[in-house]
Amino acid sequence: MSEEKVYTAAIVVIGNEVLSGRVQDLNVNYLALGLKDLGIRLREVRIIPDVKATIVDTVNTLRALHDYVFTTGGIGPTHDDITAESIAAAFDVALERNPRATAMLEQYYGDRINEGRLRMANVPAGGELLDNPVSFAPGFRLHNVYVLPGVPRIMQAMFDTFKHRLAGGRPQRSRTVTAFIGESLVAAGLAAIQDRFADVEIGSYPFVRNERFGCALVSRSVDEASLARATEAIAELVRALGVEPQISDGES
Amino acid sequence: MSEEKVYTAAIVVIGNEVLSGRVQDLNVNYLALGLKDLGIRLREVRIIPDVKATIVDTVNTLRALHDYVFTTGGIGPTHDDITAESIAAAFDVALERNPRATAMLEQYYGDRINEGRLRMANVPAGGELLDNPVSFAPGFRLHNVYVLPGVPRIMQAMFDTFKHRLAGGRPQRSRTVTAFIGESLVAAGLAAIQDRFADVEIGSYPFVRNERFGCALVSRSVDEASLARATEAIAELVRALGVEPQISDGES
Repeated sequence: MSEEKVYTAAIVVIGNEVLSGRVQDLNVNYLALGLKDLGIRLREVRIIPDVKATIVDTVNTLRALHDYVFTTGGIGPTHDDITAESIAAAFDVALERNPRATAMLEQYYGDRINEGRLRMANVPAGGELLDNPVSFAPGFRLHNVYVLPGVPRIMQAMFDTFKHRLAGGRPQRSRTVTAFIGESLVAAGLAAIQDRFADVEIGSYPFVRNERFGCALVSRSVDEASLARATEAIAELVRALGVEPQISDGES
Repeated sequence: MSEEKVYTAAIVVIGNEVLSGRVQDLNVNYLALGLKDLGIRLREVRIIPDVKATIVDTVNTLRALHDYVFTTGGIGPTHDDITAESIAAAFDVALERNPRATAMLEQYYGDRINEGRLRMANVPAGGELLDNPVSFAPGFRLHNVYVLPGVPRIMQAMFDTFKHRLAGGRPQRSRTVTAFIGESLVAAGLAAIQDRFADVEIGSYPFVRNERFGCALVSRSVDEASLARATEAIAELVRALGVEPQISDGES
């Protein structure tokens, strides 16, 4: 059997406002779920400040390691929006005023166009515009780096316009065995099951519900047969401890 | 005037369940706000998988760069809880069964103690236990690395037990000028104000409220006088454009 390509991705959240605690990031979770459906593994997220050298270094590190890098934030018209110029620097290409983005902005603003607004049409040479169905600031793709806005509603809409064009592998499926049992009671048996299934990733997530301890035992795999067998082994482990498990598709 | 020390921190979220999209991380925002109050700048966050080599590399990179590193997740009793052994490997010290943690777990579980549960007493040599006021899995500190649980309620309670002992600098204060005005209209003036105030970090965050565009113009500084002057300059800029600004303490 030939080796199957595993597609991987990283996200770079560019945002002083996330690091300062001003806002709760919501983009990572949306992208994580979207990438999972596409068969692309999200391997790493970095939240970094609006500092050009940091953006350049981070993007250059991650684009060499992963099939895809998604950045969020910093593509508006103000002085702290430095993502486009930083990506240009990362790839060592010029930052150019994109004609199509300029035309879109001119159409949107009419005679209210100004230099600040036109700044949003600056795209690194070779960059391909990404459609923005909600507002007007275009995102762009340069090689394997996708530059998206920070506002969640706009980021989500933009991602949804191009995600079907991203190449991915077999999607990782998940099944969950939920049981009202302390996870330390299943720990040894679970470790033994993990050892038997190299192609299944098993995670244990404790919870408290109605003042009862329980755990969600999640299996993840691209192989449906392995996933089914691991899930059944975990359910059996729970039953052997005298507890009736609940089995469901997905991660909860 | 002598150079003032700036205390910095990084957070490492150890969690396949965040990367898979199973859960929305809430710990970063809590720690960000807490650190801000203590005069510690959160400079970077990395969300990484439950992979020992990745944890080792990430912690070793960040602990050399920052005064503090906080990890969240992976300190329970199951096979996927590998934070303690990874931190021991990062510092190249042995993983030891901590006597005080063992005694706490034995007291909590009584005759229901088992090997899985005792695994939670494993702490790298030299590690200092961190109190857990909610449940029983202890966190620990080793040099400048603070190892915290992943469950938000427990993580928050643990952080709150020791945070007052963390050394920090002058806290960065924030003031916000909110105006119903498109941020591209203030962009040029705002950039000029940013240039005048090297010790103030100015961020512009657009919003839509009641179907009207607006922006929150946030100034952050450890220097109260500079903060007040920058805020007033931004308010004047907005007034000059015919819009009445709202000024508030904090970031919104």
